[in-house]
Amino acid sequence: MESDSSVFEYATRLPNELFRENREKFIKSFRETVPSHQKALLVFKGKDELPIDSTDIDYEIKQESFFYYLFGVQEPGCSAVIDIENQKTYLFFPKLDDIYKLWMKVPSQKEIEELYPDFEHKFLEELEQWVQEFNPSKVYINKGVNSDSGLTTTIPQFKWLDDLTVDDSTMHDILAECRVVKSQLEVKMLELANDITSESHIWTMQQCKPGVRESYLASKFKAFGQEKYNCKILPYFNICACGPNPSTLHYHVNDDILPEVGMCLMDMGHSVHCYGADVTVCYPCNGKFTEKQRQIYDLVMKASRVVMKALRPGVSWVDMHLLAERVNLEGLKELGIVKGDIDEMLEARVGFIFQPHGLGHLIGLDTHDVGGYLPSDPPRSDKWGIKNLRTSRVMEENMVVTVEPGCYFIPSIIKERAVDIGIDIDKYIDVEKAMEYRQEVAGVRIEDGVVITADGCRNLTKVPRSVEQVEACMKGENWKDLPDFKL
Amino acid sequence: MESDSSVFEYATRLPNELFRENREKFIKSFRETVPSHQKALLVFKGKDELPIDSTDIDYEIKQESFFYYLFGVQEPGCSAVIDIENQKTYLFFPKLDDIYKLWMKVPSQKEIEELYPDFEHKFLEELEQWVQEFNPSKVYINKGVNSDSGLTTTIPQFKWLDDLTVDDSTMHDILAECRVVKSQLEVKMLELANDITSESHIWTMQQCKPGVRESYLASKFKAFGQEKYNCKILPYFNICACGPNPSTLHYHVNDDILPEVGMCLMDMGHSVHCYGADVTVCYPCNGKFTEKQRQIYDLVMKASRVVMKALRPGVSWVDMHLLAERVNLEGLKELGIVKGDIDEMLEARVGFIFQPHGLGHLIGLDTHDVGGYLPSDPPRSDKWGIKNLRTSRVMEENMVVTVEPGCYFIPSIIKERAVDIGIDIDKYIDVEKAMEYRQEVAGVRIEDGVVITADGCRNLTKVPRSVEQVEACMKGENWKDLPDFKL
Repeated sequence: MESDSSVFEYATRLPNELFRENREKFIKSFRETVPSHQKALLVFKGKDELPIDSTDIDYEIKQESFFYYLFGVQEPGCSAVIDIENQKTYLFFPKLDDIYKLWMKVPSQKEIEELYPDFEHKFLEELEQWVQEFNPSKVYINKGVNSDSGLTTTIPQFKWLDDLTVDDSTMHDILAECRVVKSQLEVKMLELANDITSESHIWTMQQCKPGVRESYLASKFKAFGQEKYNCKILPYFNICACGPNPSTLHYHVNDDILPEVGMCLMDMGHSVHCYGADVTVCYPCNGKFTEKQRQIYDLVMKASRVVMKALRPGVSWVDMHLLAERVNLEGLKELGIVKGDIDEMLEARVGFIFQPHGLGHLIGLDTHDVGGYLPSDPPRSDKWGIKNLRTSRVMEENMVVTVEPGCYFIPSIIKERAVDIGIDIDKYIDVEKAMEYRQEVAGVRIEDGVVITADGCRNLTKVPRSVEQVEACMKGENWKDLPDFKL
Repeated sequence: MESDSSVFEYATRLPNELFRENREKFIKSFRETVPSHQKALLVFKGKDELPIDSTDIDYEIKQESFFYYLFGVQEPGCSAVIDIENQKTYLFFPKLDDIYKLWMKVPSQKEIEELYPDFEHKFLEELEQWVQEFNPSKVYINKGVNSDSGLTTTIPQFKWLDDLTVDDSTMHDILAECRVVKSQLEVKMLELANDITSESHIWTMQQCKPGVRESYLASKFKAFGQEKYNCKILPYFNICACGPNPSTLHYHVNDDILPEVGMCLMDMGHSVHCYGADVTVCYPCNGKFTEKQRQIYDLVMKASRVVMKALRPGVSWVDMHLLAERVNLEGLKELGIVKGDIDEMLEARVGFIFQPHGLGHLIGLDTHDVGGYLPSDPPRSDKWGIKNLRTSRVMEENMVVTVEPGCYFIPSIIKERAVDIGIDIDKYIDVEKAMEYRQEVAGVRIEDGVVITADGCRNLTKVPRSVEQVEACMKGENWKDLPDFKL
């Protein structure tokens, strides 16, 4: 792990070289995929300010991820154009008048040029005429559907595009594919985000006790990263769930008070130059695992570490998911919560009942990063649980994924949903036994950020994971010298 | 000031009676303005979830303010209909399937009915048919322009509205007018927001020292309100400005390090049930005013308190603004920064050069609250500074406004903008003298939340204001027994 000051230095200095590498990778890939690109332009529109309803107060935004990936520009209202034939990039900043500068901090023309030395700089107001004079053979824009949300990217709305030949079907998949395998610098950012996130989680664990509110702990986490490393925008909403709430998978109301008995599920991250971490830690509200809590916690930890041992280039993410389900089911069978043949249960999708979400996801500039189901990837399964997977891909070196197996005791899923999807409950599940776990363990999820290496994977997340480490950490004791979780 | 636990109680319990009063006031006003309202329906669309670009992660949103004002409903995706003839309100919640509930915490039908006992409850999916069966003579929707942003409210986009007689020009001004004068419960919420905000500012002042980052203090402020009172969504971006940054009026980059010499300008607030506070405190980074800092600080304090002394029902906000400018100019003249006849300078708009923003604004569910320039109000001036005013209204009892005079030393305004707007700089301004203040005082703003009473006004903000109080508070000493600022 980097020293604090080194992490801070990285976190606050704009890494132009990272975005330059991203851009060069994309330009190379585009030119190879589209050999006849003479006089073609690639036109991009960055994010505008986003007002809250009809007021004059804006949301705090971060740049749209595709635009940020290529150009590293956070300022709103910009456009960029790549002359693909000559491999030259033009950045078009809006011309802001003095009254605007009285109200808002905006860089001067000179500061913009110094901040972004890689580009030819022009004003947004010149864009239309500049394109007309360039007289492109074709204009490519980035239109594509996000496979997690089903939403389409926002495409540039320039009237003058109507008079040009526009291709909106080629660019997106090339660009999304570029973002899937990370560069060394991207991995570095993700590792730093994990460092800051891990340290913030450790601090937050030490503030935890029955009687505090979930949002108190959410605030502790956010404030630690902001106050020490100037991390201001979270990559996703804080999930701070205690008592029954861990079994709502994306719970983030965070209004409840921590009970004496029960687990906390804390799914929170910070980001570094928009490269995010997504880490979940689980611990008892009162700092001391009960027998039942330890059983389920260790079962999920085992699933996590078995998957990490198997993760390497060439393995299928779907197989990793099924491996986690298998370990879960084996553990649940030992506890008498499920019964029968493991392979049969896997086939009947009993694994889904106790982990009704996918094993994890690609992570990068977006928390659920793009490229999970590109046309060249295996299609989405229609089986329960497997269809929830955010990617079906075969792993490659320098992909970064979260590994996040979980085990939940959700009455409506165990009792009703299981019937809906055709599971023979009486045959496979001891519902009464399962419900005995509900109060002490509504759900456990263990989530780490992991980079695929040449012959395995490397865990970027550095939080206490064994029961002994977690208990010591919560007491403020030295936990790093205690044994880590072992398979 | 309420006790901490009483503030907490108010801040976390939904005040249904407040929204009921709002609704009754609006219904009464609408029926009076539109006497022939037989079989008319008023149709409202609440806010939907707001995804971040094309991802499946949403922004943290609060309800659109008009909708919240009338119904007090925070959940996204709802609609509401008022049967104006029978004075009956229908709330249409979206029907969410079980899989959605696995991922998100959503109230059950029973919980919705308990949470919002004032309404007839229906599902959103029933809305179209319900309206058709009602067969309204006319449908009114809320369309209007925000006078601060110039943006139009989001209007309901229901296809079935095309087949009905829709009036989109009547409702907005009636509704906006209702929001201008506050009820006792609304004042109570605004007072609580000011209590929490004041306490958070005091805590933040005590964390201030040269060498910390602006965003460190922004985090301290936000975390205090969230951790103690569960205030999670800020009414506006935190302005934490040190060194030269206070002279950028809406600065909120918050990336700079506090210098030894220089002022902090902290413009931050919390909200209670979306009723916000907007409070600015200014203090030296190192906790000890220099002579120049004290001079400008006291000058602005004087403007603030002179205005508060004059504020009462019947006075014009424009006159209050000019009064603040007059006190500023008198003070600046004493310091030798401006010269000449005060009335002449006011006429020539020299006041604008040192306070290039309006005196304040209506505040409520929006920080810059609606209703500043309704058709029945005096028109917007075209004079520099006065045209910046967010309202031209004559004050009425139970209006709540911010009083926020300021004094800034902004080279581009004093040197260039002054010439542009035709001010004879040589005649009125000692530019060299003014620039002597720049390093120690880029800008001072003193902002309080104030409710107009029957015969004056009451300051809702309770922070240290005299130089002695501020210095003692920053040292963690008892400041409440020290003399407050006196005129």
